[in-house]
Amino acid sequence: MSHETRKSAVQTLEWRDGALYLIDQRQLPLRFETVVCRTAEETAAAIRDMVVRGAPAIGAAAAYGMALGARDAAARFADDTAGFLDEMERIGAHLKQARPTAVNLFWAVDRVLAVLRAAAQGGAGGHSPTPAPLAERLLEEAHRIADEDRRVNYAIGRHGAPLLEPGGVLHHCNTGALATVDYGTALGVIRAAHAAGTPIHVYASETRPFLQGARLTTWELLQEGIPTTLITDNMAAHVMAKGMVKSVIVGADRVTANGDVVNKIGTYGLAVLAKEHGIPFYVAAPVSTLDLSLKSGDEVVIEERDPREVTHVQGRRIAPEGVNVYNPAFDVTPARYVTAIITEYGVVRPPYEEGLAAVVAMAKKEANRA
Amino acid sequence: MSHETRKSAVQTLEWRDGALYLIDQRQLPLRFETVVCRTAEETAAAIRDMVVRGAPAIGAAAAYGMALGARDAAARFADDTAGFLDEMERIGAHLKQARPTAVNLFWAVDRVLAVLRAAAQGGAGGHSPTPAPLAERLLEEAHRIADEDRRVNYAIGRHGAPLLEPGGVLHHCNTGALATVDYGTALGVIRAAHAAGTPIHVYASETRPFLQGARLTTWELLQEGIPTTLITDNMAAHVMAKGMVKSVIVGADRVTANGDVVNKIGTYGLAVLAKEHGIPFYVAAPVSTLDLSLKSGDEVVIEERDPREVTHVQGRRIAPEGVNVYNPAFDVTPARYVTAIITEYGVVRPPYEEGLAAVVAMAKKEANRA
Repeated sequence: MSHETRKSAVQTLEWRDGALYLIDQRQLPLRFETVVCRTAEETAAAIRDMVVRGAPAIGAAAAYGMALGARDAAARFADDTAGFLDEMERIGAHLKQARPTAVNLFWAVDRVLAVLRAAAQGGAGGHSPTPAPLAERLLEEAHRIADEDRRVNYAIGRHGAPLLEPGGVLHHCNTGALATVDYGTALGVIRAAHAAGTPIHVYASETRPFLQGARLTTWELLQEGIPTTLITDNMAAHVMAKGMVKSVIVGADRVTANGDVVNKIGTYGLAVLAKEHGIPFYVAAPVSTLDLSLKSGDEVVIEERDPREVTHVQGRRIAPEGVNVYNPAFDVTPARYVTAIITEYGVVRPPYEEGLAAVVAMAKKEANRA
Repeated sequence: MSHETRKSAVQTLEWRDGALYLIDQRQLPLRFETVVCRTAEETAAAIRDMVVRGAPAIGAAAAYGMALGARDAAARFADDTAGFLDEMERIGAHLKQARPTAVNLFWAVDRVLAVLRAAAQGGAGGHSPTPAPLAERLLEEAHRIADEDRRVNYAIGRHGAPLLEPGGVLHHCNTGALATVDYGTALGVIRAAHAAGTPIHVYASETRPFLQGARLTTWELLQEGIPTTLITDNMAAHVMAKGMVKSVIVGADRVTANGDVVNKIGTYGLAVLAKEHGIPFYVAAPVSTLDLSLKSGDEVVIEERDPREVTHVQGRRIAPEGVNVYNPAFDVTPARYVTAIITEYGVVRPPYEEGLAAVVAMAKKEANRA
């Protein structure tokens, strides 16, 4: 197992001395605290309580949670491989319950369980290996999941960095190390451009209602020493009109076959404003977010979230009792507003149908080789 | 003195039983409290402490503060008209100190002082009237100032209401009764359309950083029973794309000779989005906000406000210590995005140079007649 050496100042999750260390994202930016998970149970609690958030980060945390559970089970089940495997299924089910709608959580747990089952059957001479080496194999797979996410993000950063011109870069929401295992997607492009010496200045939109920009992105960029200015979402048009922004870059929750981008609410407005001001609008999207089964963004149902996110900030009420609220979590940016989509396999430009299909084909080919 | 009978449910300020009643806007929307001012001193404190805000409302409150001061001084100075006038100058200077940069405050105090001086010289047979009738004359002038503001707002509402189509109306910031003596400007148009039976539904943008939309506009509209949905500023593009908005209406802090509109930050972005979605963008602007001495918005210096407005909400920190913040209070919407400007003398459409000049000429003519 190889560890990447090029790491960000921010380590959302880290395996150290046989334990999983998580940055407690609930406390940011007011306090920097680390939560240590030494058991699968503690990891499940950390996922449930949102110590860790962001799909790739949750997936990797769950895989490490399985590794912690396997270490413990291996000690208890000693030579009883069948009992050990049953126990791991139980632990996997428990971890999934921590965030029952998180797709990456299910994906990661199922992946390590499949590896475990394959390893259990693959013993020399037809004998099942004992639990101890199986637990080690599971930890190796958790490292692999984390490393894959890092590598995807580094690749996105490498491909995207040359697109950013010197000057202001407007960034929405949090797409950084805190949402991934490390480095981030759109924020990874910003990190890579900064590391390459491009003199950029980030305008971080605060991203109401949940304030990921104000709370997390500015915090990450302060750690990295990347020049940053926090603005409210409704200042974006003004900073563009003043010529302060040379490019806009955002992440993606899902990209459909035609290049429509489903992302955090507010993304679409920024895309329209960028077009009006002649500013390129870039989307950083790992292949895992490309959903070619959907023709266009019209097919995506937009999740509506708790009105309390809008009526309250940090637990304090800001709107009158009884007010009606609309709180869509995402919006759809039609492909015609998107200058380019940056994936780990390269930069895709319009027409997107062909380019995105080619990227997905590359990813499948590589997966088959592995 | 005639009182308008057609009043909103919200009475920002009201003269009742010889005292000035103010809605305490610092407490909204969490608590509805009224502050009673029985002296000029109490009125100055209410203005200083932002119990009352919004230029027209501050002006009228100050005029009533002068009336309260005059009643008290008239009792103390009995037949000493010269002493009374000196005392009124002193009270006026004190009131001005309450918000030393509020133009309307200075305007209102100077206007009632001028009326007082004129009345003092105009006694029958060359004799100066005693303080008591002068104090009454001053109260009459305060009522007049308040009534004029009401009439301006009613007229804007009357002219603007037919422009609003049935359906969603997006409104930014607070332009309502709370910012004026009564009724409001852009919100006055909404009130008038609702009163005329047009089935409208208001989308109130929360208006970060100060949240006037979330705190004040939704509260006013709830009082009036006008259907309203609160959204964060970055949801505007999404609700437009969904066809939920038929028109956008905002107020104005200043309108330049060419029709450029200086208004609360976020206005310009809404104008661009409205244009992109083919939605009319209306500006409600009393003649007092038309500044024909400025050719265009380029000549306006945008005030930058305390970063704390962005980094804190209701006193709670939402962004990390040490973060750099940009906090412009206003932005400039170029005239080409503005469908029409609604004044108390009628609706002005492009080209704005001529139309706005004609409206200002009408206002001057009427002022000369009075």
